[in-house]
Amino acid sequence: MLVGSIEAGGTKFVCAVGDEDYRIKDSVHFPTTTPEETLQKAIDYFKQFDIEALGIASFGPIEQRKNSPKYGYITSTPKPGWKDTDFVGKMKEAFDIPMFWTTDVNGSAYGEYVMSTLSNEKIDSLVYYTVGTGVGAGAIDKGKFVGGIGHPEMGHTLVKRHPDDLDFKGVCPFHGDCLEGLVAGPTFEARLGIKGQDVPLTNHVWDIMAYYVAQAALQATLILRPDKIVFGGGVVSELFLDKVRAQFKDLLNDYVEVPDLKKYITMPVIKNNGSATLGDFALAIRELQE
Amino acid sequence: MLVGSIEAGGTKFVCAVGDEDYRIKDSVHFPTTTPEETLQKAIDYFKQFDIEALGIASFGPIEQRKNSPKYGYITSTPKPGWKDTDFVGKMKEAFDIPMFWTTDVNGSAYGEYVMSTLSNEKIDSLVYYTVGTGVGAGAIDKGKFVGGIGHPEMGHTLVKRHPDDLDFKGVCPFHGDCLEGLVAGPTFEARLGIKGQDVPLTNHVWDIMAYYVAQAALQATLILRPDKIVFGGGVVSELFLDKVRAQFKDLLNDYVEVPDLKKYITMPVIKNNGSATLGDFALAIRELQE
Ligand SMILES: Nc1ncnc2c1ncn2[C@@H]1O[C@H](COP(=O)(O)OP(=O)(O)O)[C@@H](O)[C@H]1O
Ligand SMILES: Nc1ncnc2c1ncn2[C@@H]1O[C@H](COP(=O)(O)OP(=O)(O)O)[C@@H](O)[C@H]1O
Ligand SMILES: [Zn+2]
Ligand SMILES: [Zn+2]
Repeated sequence: MLVGSIEAGGTKFVCAVGDEDYRIKDSVHFPTTTPEETLQKAIDYFKQFDIEALGIASFGPIEQRKNSPKYGYITSTPKPGWKDTDFVGKMKEAFDIPMFWTTDVNGSAYGEYVMSTLSNEKIDSLVYYTVGTGVGAGAIDKGKFVGGIGHPEMGHTLVKRHPDDLDFKGVCPFHGDCLEGLVAGPTFEARLGIKGQDVPLTNHVWDIMAYYVAQAALQATLILRPDKIVFGGGVVSELFLDKVRAQFKDLLNDYVEVPDLKKYITMPVIKNNGSATLGDFALAIRELQE
Repeated sequence: MLVGSIEAGGTKFVCAVGDEDYRIKDSVHFPTTTPEETLQKAIDYFKQFDIEALGIASFGPIEQRKNSPKYGYITSTPKPGWKDTDFVGKMKEAFDIPMFWTTDVNGSAYGEYVMSTLSNEKIDSLVYYTVGTGVGAGAIDKGKFVGGIGHPEMGHTLVKRHPDDLDFKGVCPFHGDCLEGLVAGPTFEARLGIKGQDVPLTNHVWDIMAYYVAQAALQATLILRPDKIVFGGGVVSELFLDKVRAQFKDLLNDYVEVPDLKKYITMPVIKNNGSATLGDFALAIRELQE
């Protein structure tokens, strides 16, 4: 059996075909240009295979409520040309197969969740944050995606400002100093004039970043009480997460029980940004079985 | 049919008996003293009736994972005498009937959820915050309580400090200036030396409070995307919530869609602190039917 995955990002699309064991059989990626061109490329790609179901994890905001007339759309994105794009509709025209439609970060969350389960961790909840060009998160509780009238946008909550960072205005065009405005990749350029990859971990800015990311972990902990919080995205490294864990421990102050922090706050189990692809395969198979 | 409700608070217990329409047939309340005495009073009370199921909404922290040997316990509470109390075990010794066990705020959340559904609101998610002696919250997503390895403790997240309030250290014994430390009832005495009920709404401290409570609503919105956020507890009034709504609107800056704010951020539908009792009845009946 073959299933398909589309990880639709703002800069590139990753399409892949996998089998019932979530093994990648083939994959391709191409830049995100216009909806017409990009979705057609995805369709042409999958036409080569006999896929039985498709999982799509897309940049957003998206409409995910099945009872909405806009179900399957990318809705109010600022990305030029993509506002109100009927993504699932377009795919359904080309392939009359079951499809699962969710956000990019939910796809990653599900991939990490499935992979943890496969490696015999007994978990049924997980939060996946990406800290990259932006900050976003997907969450699973009792095996289901968290979210009522829409999907989470956890990257835009407010946080307590670090005493050494009070003058920084933040880079979020909507909120200034929300979490994303304070810790997304572009904040390095905004604070220091150089790219994050060029800032050594000894620079104090990393402690400030860790303070904010620890507060994100604290929010997720106190609101969702998940089994695990995974941090992915270009900004995150194991050494950075050590700082995050230390600050998280201080901030939580043992108020609620959490697993061993090395296991609780982690990098993705699936390497090379593969979480969403595996998640999509699993969601496609789930959709097929329902 | 009769079912029972216990709302177990840190200062008082409210026991009630209701019918299948959630109508209160009888109720009683008494102070929370020792576990032995207080639980015995509850048992004696319910012995007068022929209840078929019992809903218990308790102060916490509690153990709610069914597979835990401590299921049904109040666990690490600082309340003298109550640490490690086998609440459900004690009740089960007296009554061999189905029981539903959850937190006080989850009980209230469920009551508000059921009542909203009964009045034909189409909702399947809701967050209930109490802002009283402490700050706590219960949450429902897709009709189920949110929470993985434990129940939420949303009252202890951190928030961005108000510029006019930077010197206040907060009153939370665990975290200082977490949400509870900044907005619980006792903060009025700590900031101004007088009780909250004596501080006029024209006092600027109410704007500061509203700024923080709006951030709680923002966290709930961006992480859970609920249909509705209900605020109860002694500190909350309709006029205060007007301030909260205004600040919430500014902070969210239309980033995600939310219902009309008058309906989205509200006082409890059920008056006189009755939310938990109704929630308990509904949970008891649900437990009976499962
Ligand atoms: N080692 C690093 N340290 C800090 N920031 C980094 C590092 N590597 C990449 N970044 C930053 O991460 C962002 C890109 O994140 P990434 O997750 O790779 O892409 P995207 O979020 O667009 O999918 C950029 O702002 C980049 O400067
Ligand atoms: N009108 C009011 N304005 C502000 N604070 C109030 C008001 N009424 C009561 N409070 C405060 O609310 C707290 C009690 O909250 P309440 O919800 O009634 O009890 P509890 O949380 O103990 O169940 C006290 O700190 C009290 O000072
Ligand atoms: Zn923002
Ligand atoms: Zn606290």
